[in-house]
Amino acid sequence: MPSLSQHCVDQLYRAGVKHAFHLPGDYSLPIYKQFHNSPIKLIGTSSELAAGYAADAYARVNGIGLAIVTYCVGGFSILNAVAQAEAEKSPVIFLSGSPGIKERRQGMMLHHMVRTFECQHKVFSEVTCANTVLRDPTRAGYEIDRVLAALKAHSRPVYIEIPRDMMDKPISYSLDQGSPYVSVSDEEVLNEVLDEVAEYINGSTNPVILAGEEIARFGLQDRLKKFAEKTGMPVATSLLGKSVFNERHPLSLGIYCGSISKEEVSRVVDQSDCLIVLGVMQTDVNLGFMPLSFGKKKIVLVTSEECRIRNSFYKGVVFSEFMEGLLTSNIRQRSAMPIIEEREVPPFVVSQNSKITVNRLFQCINTILNKQTAVLADIGDSLFGSSDLVMHSMMQFLSPAFYTSMGFSVPGCLGVMMARPDLTPLVFVGDGAFQMTGMEFSSLCSAVESGQCKAPKIFVLNNQGYSTERLILDGPWNDIRNWNFENVPVVVGGGKGYVVETEGDLDRVLAEALPSNEVCIINVKLSKHDISSALSRFGARMKKRI
Amino acid sequence: MPSLSQHCVDQLYRAGVKHAFHLPGDYSLPIYKQFHNSPIKLIGTSSELAAGYAADAYARVNGIGLAIVTYCVGGFSILNAVAQAEAEKSPVIFLSGSPGIKERRQGMMLHHMVRTFECQHKVFSEVTCANTVLRDPTRAGYEIDRVLAALKAHSRPVYIEIPRDMMDKPISYSLDQGSPYVSVSDEEVLNEVLDEVAEYINGSTNPVILAGEEIARFGLQDRLKKFAEKTGMPVATSLLGKSVFNERHPLSLGIYCGSISKEEVSRVVDQSDCLIVLGVMQTDVNLGFMPLSFGKKKIVLVTSEECRIRNSFYKGVVFSEFMEGLLTSNIRQRSAMPIIEEREVPPFVVSQNSKITVNRLFQCINTILNKQTAVLADIGDSLFGSSDLVMHSMMQFLSPAFYTSMGFSVPGCLGVMMARPDLTPLVFVGDGAFQMTGMEFSSLCSAVESGQCKAPKIFVLNNQGYSTERLILDGPWNDIRNWNFENVPVVVGGGKGYVVETEGDLDRVLAEALPSNEVCIINVKLSKHDISSALSRFGARMKKRI
Repeated sequence: MPSLSQHCVDQLYRAGVKHAFHLPGDYSLPIYKQFHNSPIKLIGTSSELAAGYAADAYARVNGIGLAIVTYCVGGFSILNAVAQAEAEKSPVIFLSGSPGIKERRQGMMLHHMVRTFECQHKVFSEVTCANTVLRDPTRAGYEIDRVLAALKAHSRPVYIEIPRDMMDKPISYSLDQGSPYVSVSDEEVLNEVLDEVAEYINGSTNPVILAGEEIARFGLQDRLKKFAEKTGMPVATSLLGKSVFNERHPLSLGIYCGSISKEEVSRVVDQSDCLIVLGVMQTDVNLGFMPLSFGKKKIVLVTSEECRIRNSFYKGVVFSEFMEGLLTSNIRQRSAMPIIEEREVPPFVVSQNSKITVNRLFQCINTILNKQTAVLADIGDSLFGSSDLVMHSMMQFLSPAFYTSMGFSVPGCLGVMMARPDLTPLVFVGDGAFQMTGMEFSSLCSAVESGQCKAPKIFVLNNQGYSTERLILDGPWNDIRNWNFENVPVVVGGGKGYVVETEGDLDRVLAEALPSNEVCIINVKLSKHDISSALSRFGARMKKRI
Repeated sequence: MPSLSQHCVDQLYRAGVKHAFHLPGDYSLPIYKQFHNSPIKLIGTSSELAAGYAADAYARVNGIGLAIVTYCVGGFSILNAVAQAEAEKSPVIFLSGSPGIKERRQGMMLHHMVRTFECQHKVFSEVTCANTVLRDPTRAGYEIDRVLAALKAHSRPVYIEIPRDMMDKPISYSLDQGSPYVSVSDEEVLNEVLDEVAEYINGSTNPVILAGEEIARFGLQDRLKKFAEKTGMPVATSLLGKSVFNERHPLSLGIYCGSISKEEVSRVVDQSDCLIVLGVMQTDVNLGFMPLSFGKKKIVLVTSEECRIRNSFYKGVVFSEFMEGLLTSNIRQRSAMPIIEEREVPPFVVSQNSKITVNRLFQCINTILNKQTAVLADIGDSLFGSSDLVMHSMMQFLSPAFYTSMGFSVPGCLGVMMARPDLTPLVFVGDGAFQMTGMEFSSLCSAVESGQCKAPKIFVLNNQGYSTERLILDGPWNDIRNWNFENVPVVVGGGKGYVVETEGDLDRVLAEALPSNEVCIINVKLSKHDISSALSRFGARMKKRI
């Protein structure tokens, strides 16, 4: 039999992991040789939190991700990325070494430990859907199966801890035991729900699909596309689900985000007499602070967690099987739906000496997108401003629009580069978010230099502070030090930096940076109180709630 | 009555908080105005983890510290600093806003939340000694008292969460209720213990004191000094407790660290026939991987958590009262103790063109220390190399030598600067640790520019990777990208950078940097495998254990 660590690495690879984002530490080191000799590539980052964000982004694009950290000092440093993955259903494995069973008995506290040896496990059990400490080599193989099955079923993070003196132990394991978790629908209930949905849609005048992030998490983009095309129903997506449906598709409405939607989208969605909501998480930002209304019209909500037709809930309906069932159910095709006609992006006419603004920046960016572009948007106006971009392919827009944690985008870019080396990522990040994790620019340079992937372009939306906070309660606490972001390359020894103050600057910088093989960082100097129109609507809603 | 938030800010100030390290977020914003109008200064940092480390260092020097973060995205990002404070007994208050009680009922998940509204509270309860969610304005005042009393009693971190719609509510509170936690010793037991300790010491030939970090945490440095001087017993300190006893005092032995001690120290301690251990945490690194031996000789261990004479444990002995009791107990004065004689630091003779090494760097640093110097050592050779420095005053050496989490020192420096603006901090940090949190250099510049404090000097021990890991299991995973650390000032727009490759460079750079009013960063370029003699001993022990 293989050793526990060898088996673990093998199973992770079989589950789809091809890259591991990591920071080494002595409790985890014994498993490094197994990774080094495996097809899984070890990708180092400068902090655990960055490794976590990279693994999260990688998982969203690749279907599964992995981060390796050491005990406690690593585990607690990565925790915010774990929480984000849990909140937004990103299937990431967090793997950690821990003190050996034998050394735990020596009558001393061991370095990195807090209180008891169980502390890290307890904390992770609050933010993962399954977790295990592999103390017993005879059970370890099945435990790994169990947590990986849970990750697949729920599309949420899991935790695997291995005491370091267990890593080289031989395991007992037989594949014959089969996978412990396979979700199957209750056929009778599924058929009843499908019939009722067909009846709803067939009996309505202007039905609309509202699709969310779970479409991507469970790999259902093709089913969604077929369903929309089969029925001719227009598709809006949630903010978190942006680009799960190709935004250039004739049936695409773009983003619906409740009270802060663009008027032409909210008109179609709000006036629809039948709303089919697929894989949308009901969160405040995702819904524009407006809960879905289940009382007034025909509304159906199906996700991996619930199935609801108006106020009736159904148990035993598996989301992916429901989506499959929609394709064969008896729903009539419509032809003339009230979809948004304007599909061409207006050209960006440069006003050379005009001060650059957030709105104009994104108008310009909209004209340079193509099928090989990925967009990562950090929190704040990076997200709101970029929500109006029209993506050219499915699932090439990433942003933690529910958990809304700043600092995801630059490390997340590393994950996208590894998962999809054919794409050129554009990153939009505020100056505050960049100061949190943006020095991970360093790892982007290393990745590009190794010839593995395309060079991303980082746009820092620099207004010297926290814009969203300013809208709610302004004061000196929202101001931050003004960095010369264009000089980051001289610190990390790679990449190229630019400053943009006018539209003319932007035009010239893009002409040079876009075709370049270097990671570029563009310091976009904005006026302190300049914000996008979307953030302005959003801020007003936020303020009202406090 | 004042509002809940006003009362909270008032009580924090009364407890000794004069600075709050923070990052704003919408759930915490409502309390910012109260802080802004209070004598407590708000000190922003670029990441929550940095705020946590700064608050931890501040607490170690000031006696209490405070960090303010927003819900979940902030709380989970700061968690490693909370865990460090818990492990190493640093009295830090972690304050967080959270969703209002009313908005929790609106049928949507709210931004930043994970699973349930209790998730952050549950996680923090694993790494704090007391915690509270102030849902009830009629109880809030007493709850604040309760957690602050626990912080004082245990010298560990506490957690206060305030739902944002509770912040402006008036509270009911009467000071008459008194503080709920006052620890008092059982007098009979205390006297018995003191008598036995006196008998032990009086009946021994060469008794030695081993003093640890709790001496500083509970403000007992003066009592320790009086006790040593009264009895003439020499004092060694643990690594974590370095400088709790003035290292230039004639009775100082310097650091004792079990099997990795310097030979002249371990000889005195190991050959002592009576060891009085005061406030030492029994951790692997602190004890050089050698548990205290309670069987073979006269040994007494008293800390805030236990009181032990050989194998007998005593309950009801309060550490500070025991220390007070020692001063009046009947212990005879000795005169000629076998203390280490060499007290003068040898001069550093520059060998101009010799490549700089870790050992030589610290030999040189030893000659520039004075009573106004603080030293912050990050983990790795920054700690081991600097353990031989002879500090000139009490409690001016800080390093997380038990929890051993990388990345503490640069943000920690900000905390020391606020708590002791009269000191000039020297920071020693590896290149790996700097890449984690070192860009907080930015905040150091802001602090110095505001004229509040002396300009610290940051020494980056740059060997392009994780040295301690290399000693255990080397491979490409331990190598990191080589940053041009001397260029950090051109990114943050402040401070000055230097490169040191030879002893001559070091000499010239120190001559310019030390008297300068600018925050300086010195990129000390070391050979990849150069390590201090202490780390070499330490690495050998670590490797043996795996």
